[in-house]
Amino acid sequence: MSDEPAVDFSPMDEQISVSEGTTLLDAAEAAGISVEALCGGQGMCGTCKMIVDDGEECLSDRSDADEFVLSADQLADGYRLSCRAEVECGPVRSTVPSSTQNTGGIVLTEGREMAVDLDPAVKRYHVELSAPTLEDNVADRERVRQGLDATYDLTVEEFDHLTHRSLPNDLRAGEVEDEDALDVTVTVYDDQEVIDVTPGLEETAYGLAIDVGTTTLATYLVDLRTGETEAVSSQLNPQTTFGGDIMTRVRYTRRNEDGRDELQGAIRDGVNECIEEVTAEAGVGRDEIFEAVFVGNTAMHHLFLGIEPSYVAGSPYVAANHAPVAVKARDLDVDIHDGGYCYWLPISGGWVGPDKVSVLLVSGHHEEDETTVCIDIGTNGEISVGNGEKMWVTSAPAGPALEGAEITHGLRAQQGAIDQVDVDLDTREPTLGTIGDAAPNGICGSGVIDALAALFEAGLVDRRGQFREEVMDHRRVRRNDDDVVEYVLAFDEETAVAGDVVLTQNDLREIQMAKAAIQAGTLVLVDELEIEQVDRVVLAGGFGNYIDPESAMTMGLFPDVELDRVESLGNAAGIGAKLALLDGERRADAERIVDEIEYYEIAGTDVFRDKFLESMYLPHQDFDAYPHVRERIETLRSVDDVRTMDD
Amino acid sequence: MSDEPAVDFSPMDEQISVSEGTTLLDAAEAAGISVEALCGGQGMCGTCKMIVDDGEECLSDRSDADEFVLSADQLADGYRLSCRAEVECGPVRSTVPSSTQNTGGIVLTEGREMAVDLDPAVKRYHVELSAPTLEDNVADRERVRQGLDATYDLTVEEFDHLTHRSLPNDLRAGEVEDEDALDVTVTVYDDQEVIDVTPGLEETAYGLAIDVGTTTLATYLVDLRTGETEAVSSQLNPQTTFGGDIMTRVRYTRRNEDGRDELQGAIRDGVNECIEEVTAEAGVGRDEIFEAVFVGNTAMHHLFLGIEPSYVAGSPYVAANHAPVAVKARDLDVDIHDGGYCYWLPISGGWVGPDKVSVLLVSGHHEEDETTVCIDIGTNGEISVGNGEKMWVTSAPAGPALEGAEITHGLRAQQGAIDQVDVDLDTREPTLGTIGDAAPNGICGSGVIDALAALFEAGLVDRRGQFREEVMDHRRVRRNDDDVVEYVLAFDEETAVAGDVVLTQNDLREIQMAKAAIQAGTLVLVDELEIEQVDRVVLAGGFGNYIDPESAMTMGLFPDVELDRVESLGNAAGIGAKLALLDGERRADAERIVDEIEYYEIAGTDVFRDKFLESMYLPHQDFDAYPHVRERIETLRSVDDVRTMDD
Repeated sequence: MSDEPAVDFSPMDEQISVSEGTTLLDAAEAAGISVEALCGGQGMCGTCKMIVDDGEECLSDRSDADEFVLSADQLADGYRLSCRAEVECGPVRSTVPSSTQNTGGIVLTEGREMAVDLDPAVKRYHVELSAPTLEDNVADRERVRQGLDATYDLTVEEFDHLTHRSLPNDLRAGEVEDEDALDVTVTVYDDQEVIDVTPGLEETAYGLAIDVGTTTLATYLVDLRTGETEAVSSQLNPQTTFGGDIMTRVRYTRRNEDGRDELQGAIRDGVNECIEEVTAEAGVGRDEIFEAVFVGNTAMHHLFLGIEPSYVAGSPYVAANHAPVAVKARDLDVDIHDGGYCYWLPISGGWVGPDKVSVLLVSGHHEEDETTVCIDIGTNGEISVGNGEKMWVTSAPAGPALEGAEITHGLRAQQGAIDQVDVDLDTREPTLGTIGDAAPNGICGSGVIDALAALFEAGLVDRRGQFREEVMDHRRVRRNDDDVVEYVLAFDEETAVAGDVVLTQNDLREIQMAKAAIQAGTLVLVDELEIEQVDRVVLAGGFGNYIDPESAMTMGLFPDVELDRVESLGNAAGIGAKLALLDGERRADAERIVDEIEYYEIAGTDVFRDKFLESMYLPHQDFDAYPHVRERIETLRSVDDVRTMDD
Repeated sequence: MSDEPAVDFSPMDEQISVSEGTTLLDAAEAAGISVEALCGGQGMCGTCKMIVDDGEECLSDRSDADEFVLSADQLADGYRLSCRAEVECGPVRSTVPSSTQNTGGIVLTEGREMAVDLDPAVKRYHVELSAPTLEDNVADRERVRQGLDATYDLTVEEFDHLTHRSLPNDLRAGEVEDEDALDVTVTVYDDQEVIDVTPGLEETAYGLAIDVGTTTLATYLVDLRTGETEAVSSQLNPQTTFGGDIMTRVRYTRRNEDGRDELQGAIRDGVNECIEEVTAEAGVGRDEIFEAVFVGNTAMHHLFLGIEPSYVAGSPYVAANHAPVAVKARDLDVDIHDGGYCYWLPISGGWVGPDKVSVLLVSGHHEEDETTVCIDIGTNGEISVGNGEKMWVTSAPAGPALEGAEITHGLRAQQGAIDQVDVDLDTREPTLGTIGDAAPNGICGSGVIDALAALFEAGLVDRRGQFREEVMDHRRVRRNDDDVVEYVLAFDEETAVAGDVVLTQNDLREIQMAKAAIQAGTLVLVDELEIEQVDRVVLAGGFGNYIDPESAMTMGLFPDVELDRVESLGNAAGIGAKLALLDGERRADAERIVDEIEYYEIAGTDVFRDKFLESMYLPHQDFDAYPHVRERIETLRSVDDVRTMDD
């Protein structure tokens, strides 16, 4: 008997012994249980959650990811993210809820396709054909068609012309000895086009989910039979060389004759590098990858496909197309199977691109009765408000401040960046958290939000975001050489850079403007839809993942709700791409969302400008509309003090 | 008043004065009358025929083309090929029959498409769209779709992804001043895919009909609005470098790793050279060409598309596909519009390729009550027998003898080649015709057929094709150094080469074998279909155009019919490609022919071998089955003499 820790999974009653430090997820996989883990075991999606029935003490402590991704109810019920729970001793007993179980991939058998939950656009069919004779010399293509029809009742009209090239050889290489039969595996795209014919039985099939962010390019290699993520690669979007933000890149295409081609080439090269990485890591051939599903904002969509992006970037913000686009990968020089496709999710409006559609798909709020506000924070805050009955979406020009840009010591989320700020209510001294616990070298987006909320809570700034006169004598508050007030987050000797790390009055203003844009956009939709009560807030995007929901609500970034009704979807765009890759129904849902959702253009409207000005306040000019925030501030400070802040 | 000859056309009552030497066809075109001329005015198709009512004496004499292409009835009724009739004086009065009139192309108007006879796969639609605003910011693609739907009731799902690239610019370049409208021309392929969007009104549209012969590549540039051929280019098939015949080329692909790519590259380069020539000649841009329709034999089809050709070339002669193939021209690097298509007519069987399907389409005998035998003479004789009710097709291995190969002094049809041979019945001396009336340097296919028939008619050879013992003392009959009997067609001093030009007993045998293969193939089909009486013989292919029908019938090349029921279709493959390019209904007919026709494989069958041996005789072992031939021979010679020949 092994003395390694034993784990027992219900309801399938599988036991396994694993080495110390193995995650519950890996243990389950080792025991032959297929588990959903859409984010690839990165603690972002929550789809791998399990209930720990016994032996909780044998597991590693709950991680931050557990606290954030799982609801309070789930935590109370003993749920853990199996990808984050390491087995340190035994025995452990765990229940795998049915929602967590991956109920199977496509199993190709002789003539029968197993019932599946997975339904990718790419399917492989194993067919046995009679060998041609003088009496039966129907052409190879028609022979394959007859086989698909006879065995799977599947009528396929189209063949990628490249399949013809080696079809005669492929078919004959599949010869079954002594049987006058030819055995081949036929790969069909979208039930309508044969894109590959391979001799013999060949079951492996992979796809890619690719999130083309303005800043980051993330590529997931997914096994289409199991839905499992086999490898992940991410890198800086190579278009960044041409400009950090969309407008700069669009301007580049206007000013340079070959600009569009250059930008398209850059992102394509990046994607191909990612493909090289994930295939090498997983030991998968590029010919085994039959589809890449892409998400990204509309500008990324256009620049990836080589489409003129100018008109998306200016009023009236018209995209080149709304419909989903499936383009042969070879037409775009993307290194997957020659007959494979690059599929882009549809576009709803100029600023509501496939990334937002993907987020909506993951949030699922288009199917619910409750009213949800879904915010994807980025240079543009993409905001949807609604429910199963009606859903509006808009895009608010937040600018880059929430990503650390335009801030005196702003940084991207990187080693040493301050990502958490708390300010003591009495001493008004800060407590900082930094990425990697390194000495601070600047402040990133989530730190900026924390900082503004903390400065407000500690009474250092008033509801207009102005440093209050009476704190000017604090040792951390001072006027800089330009006579601008600033707060010292870390003094020279504590930092990893030369000099202090500060937040200036101007920085605060940048942050306020960014949050006000998102807040005002949300409020416009809430008003237009005549919504009395927002029930739930969903935050998407890498940024939405790291933000402190309490600080964000204190700032008024989203409507006042119970704090436990604020959820993060993690990298919802990427997860949505994966859903669309794996499940035809979800892909159809995305098209339905685009058809049903209404895009509300706020840019240049009076109502947006009015709400924007009201939203410059913390949390809003009408403090009473934010009862949870007000109550919290009142518990932190005396009511009188709060009244003073109101001024 | 001009003193140039005047021509008057009925029933349209158009008059015009033309310079001397102008053809009736050009005169009609100059008078604004659109005339069918499918072969491009080369005297091959007969579609430009007109009735000369007055002034026949003012026209050039009837050409050989008139005699051959027009029927005896038509000649008696005063028909002339307008492309061959030059106006030498005036006045001339001519009727343009309705069948000759080209009733018009697609006329694009504001919102209405004129009734047309022409119905190409490529159509251009002029649409006016409202300019996008903040209130109406539907995407560009969807705006175009809405326009097509509203104006033409046309629902198009697909857009070539390349149209997206410049769609935003193209649309806005079509801005109509002061109207808030965008005017564009949308080009749609096969009613289902937008392949081009161009600002403003753009009516020009061209297509290519391309005949990929094993030896010759011919390219016709056709105006899709009028059906007129604007330019023609032909060249040697560049694959000839890799082998003159199909088998050598197929072997090359087997023996060289990149052989298939090399052969595909060679023919593609040839096609692109032809395109460069025709576009330069007609002053047409490659972007104005939206489709190229291809015909050729199955091997050419495979080699053009890069398909493994080995299995077409050997039993059981299986093609890679039967269905017609439409491939983006850019996928094949063919230099037409980026979104355009290369379309190959369908394949019926391994040796009955798109060229034969094209011939069947032109012959039209699949729609008739009479029984027709259609023979396309080449290295393989492609033979169809049948009528509207039932039609069978086969391919007979004729070998290259009828094309002048394997013959001692055999030549392709070129300057100086003997193409006509008559032998005086009494003196047994020959009268020769040569191409270009030059001194003879060899003999080509039609000459070879004439020669064998003439030698037989003059009693020099018997019905077995053997030189008769009693003519061995003729001054032109002798034994050569290898002791083989030969007949001197031209003595040294008459020829353009060193030495005599002769036909040997072995040459005669090669010709007999070639004709016997075709004859036997035909007879197998006639027997299998239980046909009592063949009504009509149709000859296709460049060779079929030049052959003397009487000599060919004397040899037994085709069944015994009334001589005036033998017709030549000219270059039917190329004409069929043009029909398929111009008329969707004909294209559909081609698919129907492939569905309905039955391919009968004669190779290796006993019945074919038996009939082949019987057919080695002139005209056939059973002389009585060829009553017209027998009667003719009997009028030429005494009945006794014919009896002797029977031995």
